[in-house]
Amino acid sequence: MPASEREKMAAGEWYCCLDHELDILRRQARVAVHAHNSLPPDERGAVAPALRRLFAEAAPEVFIEAPFHCSYGINIVLGERVYFNAGCTILDSGSVTIGDRTMLGPGVQIYCAEHHKDPALRSEGIEIARPVAIGSDVWIGGGTIILGGVTIGDGAIVGAGAVVTKDVPAGARVVGNPARPINRV
Amino acid sequence: MPASEREKMAAGEWYCCLDHELDILRRQARVAVHAHNSLPPDERGAVAPALRRLFAEAAPEVFIEAPFHCSYGINIVLGERVYFNAGCTILDSGSVTIGDRTMLGPGVQIYCAEHHKDPALRSEGIEIARPVAIGSDVWIGGGTIILGGVTIGDGAIVGAGAVVTKDVPAGARVVGNPARPINRV
Amino acid sequence: MPASEREKMAAGEWYCCLDHELDILRRQARVAVHAHNSLPPDERGAVAPALRRLFAEAAPEVFIEAPFHCSYGINIVLGERVYFNAGCTILDSGSVTIGDRTMLGPGVQIYCAEHHKDPALRSEGIEIARPVAIGSDVWIGGGTIILGGVTIGDGAIVGAGAVVTKDVPAGARVVGNPARPINRV
Repeated sequence: MPASEREKMAAGEWYCCLDHELDILRRQARVAVHAHNSLPPDERGAVAPALRRLFAEAAPEVFIEAPFHCSYGINIVLGERVYFNAGCTILDSGSVTIGDRTMLGPGVQIYCAEHHKDPALRSEGIEIARPVAIGSDVWIGGGTIILGGVTIGDGAIVGAGAVVTKDVPAGARVVGNPARPINRV
Repeated sequence: MPASEREKMAAGEWYCCLDHELDILRRQARVAVHAHNSLPPDERGAVAPALRRLFAEAAPEVFIEAPFHCSYGINIVLGERVYFNAGCTILDSGSVTIGDRTMLGPGVQIYCAEHHKDPALRSEGIEIARPVAIGSDVWIGGGTIILGGVTIGDGAIVGAGAVVTKDVPAGARVVGNPARPINRV
Repeated sequence: MPASEREKMAAGEWYCCLDHELDILRRQARVAVHAHNSLPPDERGAVAPALRRLFAEAAPEVFIEAPFHCSYGINIVLGERVYFNAGCTILDSGSVTIGDRTMLGPGVQIYCAEHHKDPALRSEGIEIARPVAIGSDVWIGGGTIILGGVTIGDGAIVGAGAVVTKDVPAGARVVGNPARPINRV
């Protein structure tokens, strides 16, 4: 039997997102995300049970401010005491792993999904998923965008509003669009 | 009879946004946007009837993830299978036309509204609306900002996080703040 | 008695955000913000009473489009006819003062909070709050990020999508990431 679109997505191959099985997964994600974002305001932060069940893995002390958005949720792995401030979005068609004690500022965007560059194939829903791996003790400034395929090492600092298109070494500090290393401390 | 503020806005002339008729239009837009953003999560994507009625024109298969925001709605024309990911915002004081199969990533912002550069006039609500025209089969990366007056040609690709201040030719690829062409494919 | 974390935060000293008193303050802010964002859509704009009570000070004609987000609220001072478009976020661990008739476009982000650069201290919640002061008649373009410690003078214009890391003189115009002055009018 040929691989399903979901299998191709998981394998990092080109796949078609206009697919019934993937549509069901996205719908499930919308329901879980809505449950999280609808928590009473004084209970916010703790991950809603439906969203926790959706995630591949999330440590107990994870804290996600509402609103939060993700496209599938099933590819997200969150370590101990990971913190997301309000308005973060993760397009997790690929694996998104975030290490212990890493903090995301408000409005951080992580995009695994990459559409095809050929307009004809793009219009048929052809895309590919590239994983994102963020280490432990990383500080991702607010409004940052992290593209698929990027790895960010332990202890790194990404300045607010950066667009991260390349790997960031452990302990490094990057800023700008596209993000570049700075020495300034 | 002198032109109303709404007529001046539509004609691309300086107008005063502190106006009763425009206030009613913005209120209607908030109600329709709220109806769309309040769809049950497993029905999300399809355009809520109230929002569809508000738009100047929207093809049947348009898909708009919640939350979505627009200021008037009445100046928005959307072609077949246009797709907006979550969190897009359109300030459509001017005409915003988006061609068939064009996709907007999460958090894309389109701003037709331009305030007056003279602080005294600005404080009186004087602004001008510049149209935005986006062709067919365009891919607008997440977090992109598109300013009033910009035209983006068919098949173009705008990299995530770009700030588009000038026209983008058909088939071109731009990235950065401000957005500039790149040859890299 | 040694200073509380709240007192250290207010004094501009390093403090620990993992603190019971600060947690209660953040919870109160979430409740007030939720009340504001839950106003019926045709009453939106006017500041919800709960949010108005939270703010240090807000003139009567302040207009805040939903959704809005702030972390504490108690450090925010808003002058006459201040206008926030949809999706603005203020992390007001420090004082945030915004002058009369100043307008924020959609999705503007103001971040007073700065985590410690040492990953070990950062992971213990050590951070510092730097004030932001924005003058009167300022136009902050949509999607702009303003970092802690920044002062923006009267009548200035900040271009959409700018990342403001340094002071902006009165009447100046800045754009880009990081924001730099331009002469173009």
